[in-house]
Amino acid sequence: MLKVAIVGATGYTGRELVHILLRHPHARPYYLTSESFAGQKISDVYPQFRQLCDLPLEKLDLEKVAQCDFIFAALPHGTSVNTVPQLLQTGKKVVDLSGDFRLQDAAMYPQWYGYEHTAPELLQQSVYGLPEVNRVEIAKATLVANPGCYPTGVQLALFPLLAEGVVESEDIIIDAKSGVSGAGRTPKQALHFPECTENFKAYKVTGHQHIPEMEQGLSRAAGRPVTLLFTPHLVPMIRGILSTIYLRVKPLVTEALIGEIYTKYYENEAFIRLLPSPELPETKNVSGTNFCDLAYRLDQRTGRLIVISAIDNLVKGAAGQAVQNMNIMQGWPETAGLQ
Amino acid sequence: MLKVAIVGATGYTGRELVHILLRHPHARPYYLTSESFAGQKISDVYPQFRQLCDLPLEKLDLEKVAQCDFIFAALPHGTSVNTVPQLLQTGKKVVDLSGDFRLQDAAMYPQWYGYEHTAPELLQQSVYGLPEVNRVEIAKATLVANPGCYPTGVQLALFPLLAEGVVESEDIIIDAKSGVSGAGRTPKQALHFPECTENFKAYKVTGHQHIPEMEQGLSRAAGRPVTLLFTPHLVPMIRGILSTIYLRVKPLVTEALIGEIYTKYYENEAFIRLLPSPELPETKNVSGTNFCDLAYRLDQRTGRLIVISAIDNLVKGAAGQAVQNMNIMQGWPETAGLQ
Amino acid sequence: MLKVAIVGATGYTGRELVHILLRHPHARPYYLTSESFAGQKISDVYPQFRQLCDLPLEKLDLEKVAQCDFIFAALPHGTSVNTVPQLLQTGKKVVDLSGDFRLQDAAMYPQWYGYEHTAPELLQQSVYGLPEVNRVEIAKATLVANPGCYPTGVQLALFPLLAEGVVESEDIIIDAKSGVSGAGRTPKQALHFPECTENFKAYKVTGHQHIPEMEQGLSRAAGRPVTLLFTPHLVPMIRGILSTIYLRVKPLVTEALIGEIYTKYYENEAFIRLLPSPELPETKNVSGTNFCDLAYRLDQRTGRLIVISAIDNLVKGAAGQAVQNMNIMQGWPETAGLQ
Amino acid sequence: MLKVAIVGATGYTGRELVHILLRHPHARPYYLTSESFAGQKISDVYPQFRQLCDLPLEKLDLEKVAQCDFIFAALPHGTSVNTVPQLLQTGKKVVDLSGDFRLQDAAMYPQWYGYEHTAPELLQQSVYGLPEVNRVEIAKATLVANPGCYPTGVQLALFPLLAEGVVESEDIIIDAKSGVSGAGRTPKQALHFPECTENFKAYKVTGHQHIPEMEQGLSRAAGRPVTLLFTPHLVPMIRGILSTIYLRVKPLVTEALIGEIYTKYYENEAFIRLLPSPELPETKNVSGTNFCDLAYRLDQRTGRLIVISAIDNLVKGAAGQAVQNMNIMQGWPETAGLQ
Repeated sequence: MLKVAIVGATGYTGRELVHILLRHPHARPYYLTSESFAGQKISDVYPQFRQLCDLPLEKLDLEKVAQCDFIFAALPHGTSVNTVPQLLQTGKKVVDLSGDFRLQDAAMYPQWYGYEHTAPELLQQSVYGLPEVNRVEIAKATLVANPGCYPTGVQLALFPLLAEGVVESEDIIIDAKSGVSGAGRTPKQALHFPECTENFKAYKVTGHQHIPEMEQGLSRAAGRPVTLLFTPHLVPMIRGILSTIYLRVKPLVTEALIGEIYTKYYENEAFIRLLPSPELPETKNVSGTNFCDLAYRLDQRTGRLIVISAIDNLVKGAAGQAVQNMNIMQGWPETAGLQ
Repeated sequence: MLKVAIVGATGYTGRELVHILLRHPHARPYYLTSESFAGQKISDVYPQFRQLCDLPLEKLDLEKVAQCDFIFAALPHGTSVNTVPQLLQTGKKVVDLSGDFRLQDAAMYPQWYGYEHTAPELLQQSVYGLPEVNRVEIAKATLVANPGCYPTGVQLALFPLLAEGVVESEDIIIDAKSGVSGAGRTPKQALHFPECTENFKAYKVTGHQHIPEMEQGLSRAAGRPVTLLFTPHLVPMIRGILSTIYLRVKPLVTEALIGEIYTKYYENEAFIRLLPSPELPETKNVSGTNFCDLAYRLDQRTGRLIVISAIDNLVKGAAGQAVQNMNIMQGWPETAGLQ
Repeated sequence: MLKVAIVGATGYTGRELVHILLRHPHARPYYLTSESFAGQKISDVYPQFRQLCDLPLEKLDLEKVAQCDFIFAALPHGTSVNTVPQLLQTGKKVVDLSGDFRLQDAAMYPQWYGYEHTAPELLQQSVYGLPEVNRVEIAKATLVANPGCYPTGVQLALFPLLAEGVVESEDIIIDAKSGVSGAGRTPKQALHFPECTENFKAYKVTGHQHIPEMEQGLSRAAGRPVTLLFTPHLVPMIRGILSTIYLRVKPLVTEALIGEIYTKYYENEAFIRLLPSPELPETKNVSGTNFCDLAYRLDQRTGRLIVISAIDNLVKGAAGQAVQNMNIMQGWPETAGLQ
Repeated sequence: MLKVAIVGATGYTGRELVHILLRHPHARPYYLTSESFAGQKISDVYPQFRQLCDLPLEKLDLEKVAQCDFIFAALPHGTSVNTVPQLLQTGKKVVDLSGDFRLQDAAMYPQWYGYEHTAPELLQQSVYGLPEVNRVEIAKATLVANPGCYPTGVQLALFPLLAEGVVESEDIIIDAKSGVSGAGRTPKQALHFPECTENFKAYKVTGHQHIPEMEQGLSRAAGRPVTLLFTPHLVPMIRGILSTIYLRVKPLVTEALIGEIYTKYYENEAFIRLLPSPELPETKNVSGTNFCDLAYRLDQRTGRLIVISAIDNLVKGAAGQAVQNMNIMQGWPETAGLQ
């Protein structure tokens, strides 16, 4: 059994990694680090794990990391960038769940993440971990930058259409809606239950740090620069992201052609489900799973294509995709531990 | 005190009308009809009214309606169209909360509402009841067609911008999100609590019957035909609609100019609140009120304008606006009973 | 119009006081204090008040308090005890919403509230503000100690039964369930939306600080010491408290007699609704109101009486009751501003 | 792989059975019946199963049942009683999730379930399927009556204490709170999202049909008749049951002794977690699992013992326990497919 280290195990994505790995046929959680909760057990922080996993939480000790076989880093943005280089020095493979190694261009980091990148050379080495697009490179990678939650649902929805050139690369509008776990574990006024429930709102209306990541991947798919308009919203639910994406189709493109393209790209993908009309994605149908559900409608009246995708932000949007990447990097079936 | 009849008092909008009128200084609920609950009291159907309103519910009796001074019809679409003509014959003013008298063109009804309009002549007489746009005509009306919930938040957001010609009338995209009370009182599988909570989804992705109503009003504002792309979504909350609207601005239009236009149109409007940056609308801030909160952002990267509006679907989106219309028709302050 | 000061206006009960007073026929919010938000407006902290109340928030200035006509103190326990004596020196009447003046016996404070009472002499002066029990003394009071939320629903349910001696004063068990706003405005891990929603639990299983307050009032009613078992629980909703109370009836007591007693005590009470069988209280039916809904069942199999009460923790459990007390102290109808 | 038939696969417990069996190492869903949805696939009714399980739903055909190896009946009360005898004739073992075979005394059925039992002889044969109490008989059973949801959490909490005689068998009070999935899949007004969310209430205040089942099991444990007072409540969440149980301890019983007894009975139980003080059960910590979390407090002031248990009503309260019973009946590890 592969001994897995989870650096930063007490955020929601860390917890989700532990949860998934406890049922993995070839890997198990072995070493868990936490700065805030060192000295406690993971089941003290998350009582759901009592009698399932009683691993201690420790402050990061690179020697103990080196005794593991595989490393997940689930640290905040701006922290991973300092820690991951040290983790790589153990010689073990690393999947990083932060945004710190997703962008190829180090100059993006000050603008979008608010800090100067301290390990820009690793940006060449890191492989963006979106398996349905990138599994060949992931298989060879030593450092995988696990995609952000919103960018996962968006890029899976748009990659085939831009790659096949059936939609315009301009004027793509993404209206995304996420459950509150995406905001993380730290209590804040806006996430205080009485403020958060029975409420709906947009936030970071322009300038969300997932934009460059999505534009990077979609520009690559389109073969030309893509500029997105992306508006995230907060839904009073724990998990899930639904993205409603508005596209312009090229002339003569029909709904049937769109369907053929999705089928061509995704019919053999274990984790992508193309919903037959009239079904539409609902976040509860992917909740707790590594699936991405997709549907599309061509609006005759306006000629616009609407694509809707649903994922679980903590699974396909984070920990599940991370494990999928580990499976690829280890040469295991991609679905191991995920179905 | 004006004696008010509410025909169809036991749907959610009927209940909301009773709730609002119980605190109105010049009007009170006097006669409540219900086909399903005739013989019970409103407080049997809605125990919140116990000791506040114990009016009986009766099957519609036009003679009793004629003894009232003002009539609200809160019947389903396709039912109002048959009932409202009879209500008008009492000689009393009517505000109809259904969609049956909102569209000027009778030919729209088969396509969008699924029935042939049986009183097309009344479509000339009915006045669309959006006070911030239309109060002069509302004041003279005998039949007011109360706007739909989604169309209210959308038209209030877009009317000034289209009227002033600062945004393109093409390619307007509306991504709307509504609480579940908008779906009405009748239990359905999709609205069953375990199916509905902790879930988010789009529905009626093209073809929602509120589209012609919005296009009618916005075409009038723009002075040219407007075709909208409108996607509604269901939020696991009881009340509220947030609309995120994507527009193209004409050349040289700045965020400041947008602000001036909204200020010009709305600064004296009792029920429209222009939120100062960086505030954004949240449905809970308008919950239970007749307010529409608005904000806007010009996205520099794409040149698109994003306008966000929030209303309470049962208040400004239905019963509150209906009472606001009654106030106008009666020559009272518009805010009577609403603040 | 009475000029009202709200000292500590930015907690949930302070906000609720502002909300209620904005519609009060004889009083209005005039001076609002906040230590945390001094310099902002109440509508900056609570955007629901934009265009309804734009009063500034200021650090407490006793001279400005002295210019008001009536004072509500909505400060945390342990803070009021130091502030209220100063407020009283203005010569104005004070309703205190904390627990600091509810207990007659100063010795209870270290044990239950964790501090030594610094103004024990005021405990003689303060009048416990439960109008349905105590309105004669409230009318003459200069300092009213507004009851706690849980104690309100419990004492209203039990007072008549203990006063009439139809239930045993021993072995009273109260299982109470509250919405999350009762925990206050400060973000905490347990109140973080993802931890709080889709979850139910008990807390403070023995030793809740509302126990001595309830025992004080119910012992007075019974004419003998009453010891309660009280278990609070947290419900994933914003507002409401439902208390399920288990009592032993004295011999020969019937359900009909219980009903007669409740009717005798409460049939003329504006804010207590005795629900006719088979109706049971639901928190949503009292939400936003000053009502307490009551029902009871005598279980034939065990001989136990079950009484269920429902209140809105922020209204009848706090701000609404405080305004009801103010109405009494000012000689106004008790329902002013509350219906 | 054991071929499993699920008769009545489209209720929430049927769906949960499919979900659990899809990950079972030794069994798989093979034949699914549904009267309402015959002709569709399980993934049409529950899209979460798309690409995970596309079994068809068929009207019950006993010949096809006979081709299976094991049978779960997840039919409504009053329906199972007619169907299970036919299922047993296939010679296969049956676990029935309804209440129709839980009570030993056929005379209880008219009073508590509203029908005359049509197969009373099977009541002798059926074994009550609470493994922690009864696994020896379950192992030999051909018909297991799977316990009700509420009775599971209650009996697991009380069995050791009554068996050891440390609590009184009179005056046991159970205040239980359940998520809404326990009410089943059929839409009803009270379960309509807008009526159900942001609301809390009691229901079936006396006379819940789970009472005779709990009294049967606990009387057996105590060796004398036990009469319970049981009050269920509805929580606005999907899953979970928290039971707060009030007991009288015998003289000289301490909290430590209670702990020893629970440890003696449960320390080796895979699915029971005794929470160390000061932890208390929360339904989210058992959500989706077959665990029952337990805690207890001895209230010094009243001498009452409070025991709190939490289960997932669909898992340990239904489908998970059913699979646990199948594991026992098949001679497999009890945890197979459940951890």
